[in-house]
Amino acid sequence: MRKLEVMTKQPRRRGETVRRAVLDATAAELTDAGVEHVTIAGVAARAGVHETSIYRRWVTKEALLLETAQEQTAGGVPEPDTGSFRGDLVALILALDAFVRSPIGGALLRVARTTSTADGATARETFWRDRLRSSSDIIDRARARGEIRPAVDPELLMQAVVGSVHLGVTFGGRPLDRARAEELVDLLLAGAGMPAADR
Amino acid sequence: MRKLEVMTKQPRRRGETVRRAVLDATAAELTDAGVEHVTIAGVAARAGVHETSIYRRWVTKEALLLETAQEQTAGGVPEPDTGSFRGDLVALILALDAFVRSPIGGALLRVARTTSTADGATARETFWRDRLRSSSDIIDRARARGEIRPAVDPELLMQAVVGSVHLGVTFGGRPLDRARAEELVDLLLAGAGMPAADR
Repeated sequence: MRKLEVMTKQPRRRGETVRRAVLDATAAELTDAGVEHVTIAGVAARAGVHETSIYRRWVTKEALLLETAQEQTAGGVPEPDTGSFRGDLVALILALDAFVRSPIGGALLRVARTTSTADGATARETFWRDRLRSSSDIIDRARARGEIRPAVDPELLMQAVVGSVHLGVTFGGRPLDRARAEELVDLLLAGAGMPAADR
Repeated sequence: MRKLEVMTKQPRRRGETVRRAVLDATAAELTDAGVEHVTIAGVAARAGVHETSIYRRWVTKEALLLETAQEQTAGGVPEPDTGSFRGDLVALILALDAFVRSPIGGALLRVARTTSTADGATARETFWRDRLRSSSDIIDRARARGEIRPAVDPELLMQAVVGSVHLGVTFGGRPLDRARAEELVDLLLAGAGMPAADR
C-alpha cells in the first residue's frame, strides 16, 4: 500500500525505473557480498540512486531484501503446466530445488529466514502468501481434472512440498533428481498410511 | 571419531564434565547473545574453561554450535509413543512446532541453517541423520502395527513432516494447534490425490 502511495506522487515510469534498478542492484549485491554484508549504501551506489530514495520507498533493509526475494523467486521458479497434477508437482519441486541451491536462491532463502523484526515478519508472510498464490493455478487445474481430494487444504500441501525441498537443501541432501522428486510427489499424493481397503 | 580419540587420551569423567559445561554454556550464550554474536571466548568464559580446550575438542565454532543444537533438540523434542502412528506424528509435530518457536529452538534452527563451511555441511548432515534416527522407533512401531505402506521411504516422510513445521514457523504461520496438526498428519497419511477407486 505504502509503495502505491509513493508511486502516485511521482511519474510512474520514473518510479518503475528506480524500483527496477534498486531491485536488480540488491540481487547483485546479495550474490556478490552475501546476505550479511548487503548495505543500503552499497545497493544505492550500484543502482546509481540516492540512499534516501531507497529508504523512502522500502523504509527498512529487510523490506527491500524481501521484495527482491519475492521478485527473484517468481522469476527463478516458473509455474509448470505439464497436463497432470503429478507432473506439475514434480516439475515445481525440481525447479525449486535447483533455485534454492543457486547462489541467489540460497541468499534469498537466508533473507527470508533471518529477518527477525516485526517488519520482517510481515514481509515474510507477504512473501509466503505470494508464493502460495503463484501455485494456485496448479491446484485449480488439478481440481478441474479431479486429481485432488476436495477436502485437501492447498496451503498445507504446498507447505509440505516446499518445506520438504527446503529441508533437503538445508540438511545437506543431494540435489533432487527426477526419480527422487517423483518419489516425494507420490508420497504426498498417495499418503504414507495404508489405503483404507487394506486396513 | 575425532571426539572419541581425544576423550580416550583423558580420564573420561573429566572429559565429560568439560563437554557438558561447554555445551550448556553454548546453549546459554545462544539464548542470551543470539547466533550471530556467540564467540568461543564468550563460551569459554561462561563454562570456566580455556578457549584451547574448546578448539581442541570441536575445532570449529560451527561444530560446537551444531553439537549443541543436536543435544538441545534431542532434549526439547521427546519422541512420542501414543499407541498409533497418527497420534505419534501429531504429538511430534506439536512438540517440534513449540520447540522451534522457543528462544533456544529458534537460535538452533538458525545455527543449522546458517553454517556454511564444508565442516558445517558435514555437521548438518550428521544432525539430520541423528534426527531421523530418533524418529525411527515411531516408524518401526507403525510398521509393526501395519499402519504404514511398506513402499514408503521414512526419510521422505520425515522430511515432509519436519519441513512443513519449519516452513510454517519461518513464514509467519501461527503456532500449530492440535486441529491443524491433525489436518497436516491426515494429509500426509491419506495423501492429496484422489484414492485409486475414485479415479
